[in-house]
Amino acid sequence: MMYDSIWDKQHEECGVIGIFDKTLDIPRYLYWGLFALQHRGQESGGIALTDGHDIHTYRGMGLISTVFEKGVPEDLGGHIGIGHVRYSTTGSNNPRNIQPLAVYSSFGQIALAHNGNLTNTRELREELDASGVTFQTTMDTELIVNLISRSRQNTIVERIKESMNRIQGAFSIVAMTKDRLYGIRDAYGFRPLCIGRTTTGGWVIASETCGLDALGATFVRDVQPGEVVEISEDGVKSYFYGKADRKQVCSFEYIYFARPDSVIDGQDIYQARLNMGKEMWNETQYDADLVISVPDSGNTAAIGYSMASGIPFNHGLIKNRYMGRTFIKPNQKERELAVRMKLNVVKSVVQGKRIVMVDDSIVRGTTSGIICKMLREAGAREVYMCVSAPPIMYSCFYGIDTSVRKELIASALSVEEIRKYIGVDKLHFISIDGLCRAIPGIPKEDLCLACFNNDYPTDIPVTNEEGEKYALE
Amino acid sequence: MMYDSIWDKQHEECGVIGIFDKTLDIPRYLYWGLFALQHRGQESGGIALTDGHDIHTYRGMGLISTVFEKGVPEDLGGHIGIGHVRYSTTGSNNPRNIQPLAVYSSFGQIALAHNGNLTNTRELREELDASGVTFQTTMDTELIVNLISRSRQNTIVERIKESMNRIQGAFSIVAMTKDRLYGIRDAYGFRPLCIGRTTTGGWVIASETCGLDALGATFVRDVQPGEVVEISEDGVKSYFYGKADRKQVCSFEYIYFARPDSVIDGQDIYQARLNMGKEMWNETQYDADLVISVPDSGNTAAIGYSMASGIPFNHGLIKNRYMGRTFIKPNQKERELAVRMKLNVVKSVVQGKRIVMVDDSIVRGTTSGIICKMLREAGAREVYMCVSAPPIMYSCFYGIDTSVRKELIASALSVEEIRKYIGVDKLHFISIDGLCRAIPGIPKEDLCLACFNNDYPTDIPVTNEEGEKYALE
Amino acid sequence: MMYDSIWDKQHEECGVIGIFDKTLDIPRYLYWGLFALQHRGQESGGIALTDGHDIHTYRGMGLISTVFEKGVPEDLGGHIGIGHVRYSTTGSNNPRNIQPLAVYSSFGQIALAHNGNLTNTRELREELDASGVTFQTTMDTELIVNLISRSRQNTIVERIKESMNRIQGAFSIVAMTKDRLYGIRDAYGFRPLCIGRTTTGGWVIASETCGLDALGATFVRDVQPGEVVEISEDGVKSYFYGKADRKQVCSFEYIYFARPDSVIDGQDIYQARLNMGKEMWNETQYDADLVISVPDSGNTAAIGYSMASGIPFNHGLIKNRYMGRTFIKPNQKERELAVRMKLNVVKSVVQGKRIVMVDDSIVRGTTSGIICKMLREAGAREVYMCVSAPPIMYSCFYGIDTSVRKELIASALSVEEIRKYIGVDKLHFISIDGLCRAIPGIPKEDLCLACFNNDYPTDIPVTNEEGEKYALE
Amino acid sequence: MMYDSIWDKQHEECGVIGIFDKTLDIPRYLYWGLFALQHRGQESGGIALTDGHDIHTYRGMGLISTVFEKGVPEDLGGHIGIGHVRYSTTGSNNPRNIQPLAVYSSFGQIALAHNGNLTNTRELREELDASGVTFQTTMDTELIVNLISRSRQNTIVERIKESMNRIQGAFSIVAMTKDRLYGIRDAYGFRPLCIGRTTTGGWVIASETCGLDALGATFVRDVQPGEVVEISEDGVKSYFYGKADRKQVCSFEYIYFARPDSVIDGQDIYQARLNMGKEMWNETQYDADLVISVPDSGNTAAIGYSMASGIPFNHGLIKNRYMGRTFIKPNQKERELAVRMKLNVVKSVVQGKRIVMVDDSIVRGTTSGIICKMLREAGAREVYMCVSAPPIMYSCFYGIDTSVRKELIASALSVEEIRKYIGVDKLHFISIDGLCRAIPGIPKEDLCLACFNNDYPTDIPVTNEEGEKYALE
Repeated sequence: MMYDSIWDKQHEECGVIGIFDKTLDIPRYLYWGLFALQHRGQESGGIALTDGHDIHTYRGMGLISTVFEKGVPEDLGGHIGIGHVRYSTTGSNNPRNIQPLAVYSSFGQIALAHNGNLTNTRELREELDASGVTFQTTMDTELIVNLISRSRQNTIVERIKESMNRIQGAFSIVAMTKDRLYGIRDAYGFRPLCIGRTTTGGWVIASETCGLDALGATFVRDVQPGEVVEISEDGVKSYFYGKADRKQVCSFEYIYFARPDSVIDGQDIYQARLNMGKEMWNETQYDADLVISVPDSGNTAAIGYSMASGIPFNHGLIKNRYMGRTFIKPNQKERELAVRMKLNVVKSVVQGKRIVMVDDSIVRGTTSGIICKMLREAGAREVYMCVSAPPIMYSCFYGIDTSVRKELIASALSVEEIRKYIGVDKLHFISIDGLCRAIPGIPKEDLCLACFNNDYPTDIPVTNEEGEKYALE
Repeated sequence: MMYDSIWDKQHEECGVIGIFDKTLDIPRYLYWGLFALQHRGQESGGIALTDGHDIHTYRGMGLISTVFEKGVPEDLGGHIGIGHVRYSTTGSNNPRNIQPLAVYSSFGQIALAHNGNLTNTRELREELDASGVTFQTTMDTELIVNLISRSRQNTIVERIKESMNRIQGAFSIVAMTKDRLYGIRDAYGFRPLCIGRTTTGGWVIASETCGLDALGATFVRDVQPGEVVEISEDGVKSYFYGKADRKQVCSFEYIYFARPDSVIDGQDIYQARLNMGKEMWNETQYDADLVISVPDSGNTAAIGYSMASGIPFNHGLIKNRYMGRTFIKPNQKERELAVRMKLNVVKSVVQGKRIVMVDDSIVRGTTSGIICKMLREAGAREVYMCVSAPPIMYSCFYGIDTSVRKELIASALSVEEIRKYIGVDKLHFISIDGLCRAIPGIPKEDLCLACFNNDYPTDIPVTNEEGEKYALE
Repeated sequence: MMYDSIWDKQHEECGVIGIFDKTLDIPRYLYWGLFALQHRGQESGGIALTDGHDIHTYRGMGLISTVFEKGVPEDLGGHIGIGHVRYSTTGSNNPRNIQPLAVYSSFGQIALAHNGNLTNTRELREELDASGVTFQTTMDTELIVNLISRSRQNTIVERIKESMNRIQGAFSIVAMTKDRLYGIRDAYGFRPLCIGRTTTGGWVIASETCGLDALGATFVRDVQPGEVVEISEDGVKSYFYGKADRKQVCSFEYIYFARPDSVIDGQDIYQARLNMGKEMWNETQYDADLVISVPDSGNTAAIGYSMASGIPFNHGLIKNRYMGRTFIKPNQKERELAVRMKLNVVKSVVQGKRIVMVDDSIVRGTTSGIICKMLREAGAREVYMCVSAPPIMYSCFYGIDTSVRKELIASALSVEEIRKYIGVDKLHFISIDGLCRAIPGIPKEDLCLACFNNDYPTDIPVTNEEGEKYALE
Repeated sequence: MMYDSIWDKQHEECGVIGIFDKTLDIPRYLYWGLFALQHRGQESGGIALTDGHDIHTYRGMGLISTVFEKGVPEDLGGHIGIGHVRYSTTGSNNPRNIQPLAVYSSFGQIALAHNGNLTNTRELREELDASGVTFQTTMDTELIVNLISRSRQNTIVERIKESMNRIQGAFSIVAMTKDRLYGIRDAYGFRPLCIGRTTTGGWVIASETCGLDALGATFVRDVQPGEVVEISEDGVKSYFYGKADRKQVCSFEYIYFARPDSVIDGQDIYQARLNMGKEMWNETQYDADLVISVPDSGNTAAIGYSMASGIPFNHGLIKNRYMGRTFIKPNQKERELAVRMKLNVVKSVVQGKRIVMVDDSIVRGTTSGIICKMLREAGAREVYMCVSAPPIMYSCFYGIDTSVRKELIASALSVEEIRKYIGVDKLHFISIDGLCRAIPGIPKEDLCLACFNNDYPTDIPVTNEEGEKYALE
């Protein structure tokens, strides 16, 4: 398949949701919620439900509508469930590696779903291997659940707290037992996680606020870095297992991953992207006739650029809304055809114009090159490209599937070299400072910018001079 | 499923494509082409290929990516193929009613695919029934193919011409024998059909120019009303079987059905929609802070309104891009949830604003009402709605699945009553004259406006006072 | 797949059933009935039902349990249905060529299912082609239904009678309208068809009596050659449209095709096969220690041989009961492995023994050779083979998928040459006279023996010296 | 589905196979082998392969031909693989509970497949739970693999030996690492396991010798009770981890489970069943006209009865060979219909006869009753039933899915009461002594007869007076 493979994008790996509600039809609400979070992972999905005694999982490959194409399971009568959508990164694209993961353990069954990426996986697996633990998957999730199960603490919360202190890296977790729902966020707060209230008095924990909106739930607050939230009959309890010296919210959530209608850690995503457009205008002051976006990810920043500059915005590129999963893999000759099938130029809009084209990021640069060629064929006079992410030069170890470093065009070529490769007349990447100004809700020092500036807030798994991402054998 | 059922839209019934090319991999190019035409029908799809001797069909239910999820067929070595996507209207939603239809006949095998709707189906079927013809489907396509087969003319072209003079209504047809490709358009030109040239010297016939663009083909010309185009080794030949007193191009193609990047009968769709926005500004002059669109169908007219008025455009509603086919049918209580799952408001954009919301049409009005409610909950101060189609008051008999007349809100309620039902502060439908001015490429008298003004260019199958659409028993 | 392809057997093409009953759940009873007739065709299957107004078909590829693996359709409330299982011969193995076939016609909808093979297909199709009839399949069934539809007779029965006089060859047909069930048998009676009564006072028409037994129905009588049976509210009516000069019941039904628990035209199948064993003993008088059968088709004749000779019968070969449809196609090297997987020798039974191995027929002889080799490896001292069909030297044109003549080993080699090819110590084919004596219920002159003696009772489609079977282009 | 559910049989739970061969296409040979063992489990199946580094599993629900209906996996280049077919008993019918199970552990990946049932599951799981082990399934297999992984022994063989001493009950296991194949049999030898040699110098370990025959492999010897066989580049090594005071081979393997063409622990299955027939003749001396069997499980004993008595054997009942998996569940009214669909009487064989009907066992007695009724309807004069298993009065804890005790008709009713319930004129169960005499290859004290005589060779999980089988919560 070629979902976004042709799109030259980085991939978020997961979205999570958990519901605790005594009146709602839990499976259907999990389904609606995962639909709203589908942009965070399209490879596989699943839910876990309880009947009050046992926990059952229902999981499969593909979009959530494919996984449940024969319908969602019956409501089992319990009032807790968790759900997950996944774009596989660590842990190969394997049916066994689907979440949520449910296990039997000394304290009963537990199910867990996880967004993020651990950085001390190797050390922990080696330690557990040595203790005779067996693993059936290559997921971090299985490692976490074994730590919880092996803890000698008395309560589940204490087991979780102890385990969270053992793992390093980025993680936002929802977990459930037959009578409790948990939300957990790593000490840096790399990945988002928020709490909402349903109209029927229950609770929702979700990766993004758009997951709350989809259920008609009201945003209450974000889960804090280092916090464990426990929801039960007795209401919501909050525990902290540790705190990092600084918060490190992923800046790419604001640039690309999160849905524009979400709010993360107090910062509205849509406004941030509008701001990015304005900052790029301030940084470029391009003299042009038209602002267009590469749909859909460039849409908001393009509007921002247009607003700030007064240059009119219009739709110069139309995206095919029915792409779905294409099983016909284009051969090399057909690569350009595949882009044409996904995007088409509106000739009457671009003809004769000097165009500012706004996109969110450049990973390999090939698609940008084809689009530029299509614009020129349609009669564009000049093409200036503005990118609302700084050059991506370093791999991410916190849950984003950046290509290994040598595939990142910006790690090898200068901006001018990239401009020539793509074939545009001018090329601008937003500055790191401009990006930070566009996210006023988060202090600059609380934003993770490691993929742009190599400033990793934690130890990272490899230390070789290449900085290549660690791959589990 | 609930593709667009929740969207309160009218449905186009079909898109067609045909390719004649000696070097291309015909099945793959048909696949790419149908992808580009997918917006014209999502219920089923299929292709017909020839190996130079026989014609083989490959058809199935669902999106074209679902029909061919195990891959497209091998190229059979022939150099002709036709394809079809369908939204079923006449001829129930039945696996037997999938096109293209291929038959054995006295002059060899012929395959045919059809976009449109005949208005003298009943009379023709009764006549053929009486002659002992058997039908295996309820499709107009089968009727057409029997007329061609029973013609006593000597050549296929003459058979086609004779048959086309027998049928009435709207039809754009692609057909093939083992060595010839045909494109046929009804005498009024209700439905679009155009011809393009491939880079390898072959030919494409497609419902819209976006189907040519997707294959890298160049637009040559539209098929003319009343024309039969025959493509063979000997090149393109043109025949006319009849001509109506006036052309009657469907105005809804410009309002909603066609893709914005297509050009139909010389009129650019995108520019027409921008114009509709401008006309609506001229007609309303609303004093507002923000223009938003109901994505995606309202996008272009909204930009037009913003450009003409100077009121800034922004994305106030975000559409979930992963909706696909939802198999979980919302119950009545969940209907609002289903809309929320598909659309979400960007609160920071709409809060405190007087908003002009642009949509392309109102059929039943329920979705518009839910959206308006969502906007108000998010803090919109006032909501003014502009609709780029005049009130739809009469059924279409030319290939659009308008609801039966009593389901059309505008056939029962006045504009003021509709405004109250939806709950907006102001409501404006574009005037018929405004609409016609927005489509300068087509003289007003050449536009079919029957669903707005009851001026049907042909006899229609029923004459009862209700004006209900004729349904084949 | 390799159902019986490895088994070196001839294939019956179809089994049919029809039910008229006001109290039974028609779809379920058709399903049970087709299960009982599954041995007559495993490639595809289907049923047609009526709700009293329309006729609906439900058809698919594979065993009847595969076609309905998601359940049989709901009872539509009508009280008539027909069903079909098919092994495709004429009409390639194509999803379009699945029966029953239902069409709309001047006298309403009609559905029809057919067992047999017409011999004047080419002439009739040419004639209908010339009249402008279109065909969507290559099945005889579609031809028959068009003849009925085009007849100018007033009643359906008269239309059927006229049409049956037009077609030549072998056919046993069940047909239905919304209120009538029909059973039709060709004038020679090549293929079986019988009538039974349900416990609830309804009627069943089926290819074999085992189809009646499966429904708890009681055998009433066979449909007569040249008869049309019409079952309606008014009971059973019988019509004759013609009569051949002689009856010609297929002798292979007794040898191999029919289930051993059926009775056809008054002759018990099981007893006939026992008799074949006895006749073979009379003809061979082999001095041996053990009689074994090639399961399952040789089972009954082997018992007969043992009874007549006094030589003990035992199971020397065990057949794997879970073979089902194997999708893993054996390559040449694995061909022997494939036979071993299907059959295994019981070493302790055959060791040191002089064995009479009984099988029903030899088509190509390859499997027999592998089995003989396996017996010798297991220690059999001598292997004598008895075959309860005479050498098959000529193609069948009446509904059996005999290989084209050149693939029939007996058309090219003498018995002694076949014996050497297979590697057995002695080889005997039952004599034609012996075979006829084994079927005492049918006079010899009423048995079709054409594949053994070239005495075809009708014109056959080809006259070339090879006698190759006519294949529709 | 209703495979054998209608058949009133006990179910074997599993069959296993392992191959070590440097030249064969391992996946295809595993497939052929599992086909041959399909009678040991039809609920699910799977294989594990290695590419020399990693172990990959391919598993699914249904017959092995269903699991691999899209083809077997490519040969990964490794030369080891194991396979499993399963009829689920302990561990509910759940996709998660499919074998082989492959895990990552401190000594690399290991895959394991298991036939049998442990009797100290509860104690072991409680112990491992307390150590923080998590379980993802309810299979004994997962428990075993965790014991091996947690062992502190240095070599895999020592780890296995230590673990085998911890588990109690019945188990025949195949296991593999990336370079070694293991075969393990419990200390009593309840379940069969044998070793064979391929024609290419490799090795096969299989539940039954028919699995060797299917691959053209030669039987070498049985795995001994208490033995661990390790096969590697260095050849075959044998280790013993313990030995029970007595061997306890399951007697039901000889009566029903094993395929008749297998040899287990030196005893030919076919000859044992012939002997059972002879013993039953000696014990009954019924004066009768005909011996028939309930196909297929009664076939061999019926031949034995006929041989010993001189009463002719014939096929009075015909079994439908296409039953496969029926998805249409019969309702109570249709239960008799379902039996009729599976079995039909040959009226001409049974009419007027005094019949000895031989079956292998009676569990609930319902099917026997329906068959008897069918025989009488067909005109049988008297029906005497002989059963080649003694009355089953106690549950099995060693891998056979005997119903809970209260469902065993023989645990509640006397032989005379059962006779009346079934409706036969005479009823005889083979005596325990007769059964043992029929299995001369195994000393009586080495046969497990617990389900007949309550003499369990090991502790059993429950001690309540009902003797109900322990069910894991």
